[in-house]
Amino acid sequence: MLSSMDNPTRSASGLEGPSGEHFSISEPPAQLRQPMHVPKRLLLGPGPANASPRVLQAGSLQLLGHLHPEFCQIMDEVRAGIKYALQTDSRWALAVSGTGHAAMEAALGNLLEDGERVLIASHGIWGQRASDIADRLGADVCIMPKDAGKYFSLCDIEKGLLENQPILFFITHGESSTGVLQPLDGIGELCHRDKIINRKSRIPSFYFDMTWLANYWGCDGEARRYHHTGPITGVYMLREGLAGLAEETLEKCWSRHAASAKRLHVGLQRLGLELFVQDEVARLPTVTTVCVPPDYAWKEVTDYLMTKHNIEISGGLGPTAGKVWRIGLMGYNSTAENVDKVLNALQDALTKCRHSKL
Amino acid sequence: MLSSMDNPTRSASGLEGPSGEHFSISEPPAQLRQPMHVPKRLLLGPGPANASPRVLQAGSLQLLGHLHPEFCQIMDEVRAGIKYALQTDSRWALAVSGTGHAAMEAALGNLLEDGERVLIASHGIWGQRASDIADRLGADVCIMPKDAGKYFSLCDIEKGLLENQPILFFITHGESSTGVLQPLDGIGELCHRDKIINRKSRIPSFYFDMTWLANYWGCDGEARRYHHTGPITGVYMLREGLAGLAEETLEKCWSRHAASAKRLHVGLQRLGLELFVQDEVARLPTVTTVCVPPDYAWKEVTDYLMTKHNIEISGGLGPTAGKVWRIGLMGYNSTAENVDKVLNALQDALTKCRHSKL
Repeated sequence: MLSSMDNPTRSASGLEGPSGEHFSISEPPAQLRQPMHVPKRLLLGPGPANASPRVLQAGSLQLLGHLHPEFCQIMDEVRAGIKYALQTDSRWALAVSGTGHAAMEAALGNLLEDGERVLIASHGIWGQRASDIADRLGADVCIMPKDAGKYFSLCDIEKGLLENQPILFFITHGESSTGVLQPLDGIGELCHRDKIINRKSRIPSFYFDMTWLANYWGCDGEARRYHHTGPITGVYMLREGLAGLAEETLEKCWSRHAASAKRLHVGLQRLGLELFVQDEVARLPTVTTVCVPPDYAWKEVTDYLMTKHNIEISGGLGPTAGKVWRIGLMGYNSTAENVDKVLNALQDALTKCRHSKL
Repeated sequence: MLSSMDNPTRSASGLEGPSGEHFSISEPPAQLRQPMHVPKRLLLGPGPANASPRVLQAGSLQLLGHLHPEFCQIMDEVRAGIKYALQTDSRWALAVSGTGHAAMEAALGNLLEDGERVLIASHGIWGQRASDIADRLGADVCIMPKDAGKYFSLCDIEKGLLENQPILFFITHGESSTGVLQPLDGIGELCHRDKIINRKSRIPSFYFDMTWLANYWGCDGEARRYHHTGPITGVYMLREGLAGLAEETLEKCWSRHAASAKRLHVGLQRLGLELFVQDEVARLPTVTTVCVPPDYAWKEVTDYLMTKHNIEISGGLGPTAGKVWRIGLMGYNSTAENVDKVLNALQDALTKCRHSKL
């Protein structure tokens, strides 16, 4: 993967190299001769969640070329869907060809130049990750910390901005490691606009270069040039996920997530469990953090749910490791039926996994 | 996408923000209310190619968690398949969560430190891309050029290494922009080993940090930690592609590709067309470059094939732009049947698209 130097050298055109030598080829791996094992499971952790049948079906469609007009149209539809989901008119609305961490690195790498100051509001794993990424980019990283389970007030943020005078401010809206929903209202007015087109130095990554990506995604009005070969299947699936959202509408989707979260929170409290986020308005509707009571070993409970009920919930992460369980109700999985399933399973687990002393 | 500052601020939990204000939400985009349009098409360009039914079927399987034991097993199977496909025992054999460009950037970013010299053997688009990536990484980039359609001899390479004394050497095995198969025999012995673990500075990318990736992929023998949420569906599909290769065996797969390429080359010459790569041993079996005869407009022919025959072949790229057509016979698509289809379609196009003067 890393360099051709690691590999025994050979011609791919046959069993004989250009100089006529023969090779001894290793046997095909036995484990690849077995069928792939993918059990069905209800994924109620902080992600991945189960995908809707519509999204999964898109995963089996035949490929198109990455610049075919039909694929460009699908990309346009994805852009429209992203703009709708995030309620933005930004010309930079596009999907990065990688996972969430890739998009975070793309955002920071495009905005920051060497030695520039970034202020990171850190109240969980995502602030930590952003700090790590920004440090590697050579930025001057200032961290404004907050205890796990709490959120930043507008006053906190204004103070941080005035004291540190950063060129960029980073804050996490849904801190899935603590279950906190950070309010964003008013923060935009405190900040500057983005600066990609005014950079003095080259963007350090070709793959994440937003000027190339914006061209490939048709954001700049110019003819699309070859940047990278887009992940066709992933874009199909994203398109169908966004189409599902457009069909449901944002309003109904938000209400559904709020209702499921409410039902879960009430149910957990009825089971005698304590929610980790004290302030009700700051509870993330997609990931709920629950305090592990002193007479339980957190992992015994998650293992029990997985083994006996085929349901995933997860433990804490970063500042909440060992302290909480995290229950996700995201997208397709955010239904009353799933809430009742996980509550019943938890009730069973709490009976079976209790220790008198821990 | 780039920063939350671009977006109108709102709470995701409902229609009302924490401070009680109401929002006006834009309508769902009309184009997402239409079914997605994905025509079936024979993709005989330099990629993407059509995927096998086995691979496509894996795209519709329900998700697993990115650290579930069953998913870790699938990752292990993928590693075994990569080692088999590339005939390597490298501990760094893993898949990067991105496209081919991402893997190239990962390789260069992990190996190069600021100011270090890289020698790039450039005989097409991939050498150019590697130079661009390495330059952004702050490396001292030396380029050893070669005309499009030619390849480097061992003697060329030894001379370049002695003159430039690089810490890293980059060369492209399958130069898909020119259709050249670069022989690799003997190059390994001229080069040094991999140096990731001896770096003095931090790897500039978190997402591509091979020490993290090696842990997530189970290469370092330690417990897997959370680096990023792997692209589950993509890994399923890769696993099934590699399983298909294991079932066929490398030997038969190479023979099949060699036979299809041979059949195509003979057929093209029968049509009176000239192959761009003169030296027969240096013709890439996966992508064939064909000179555009003077009395044809290259794009008219590719458009005709697409419109009338539903077959994609592509024009040149980089140094071959405007000069060649590129015909891909890769993986599932590399069959005698597809060769005959594209030859028949080309014969038809050559009759219909000829100009007396151009």
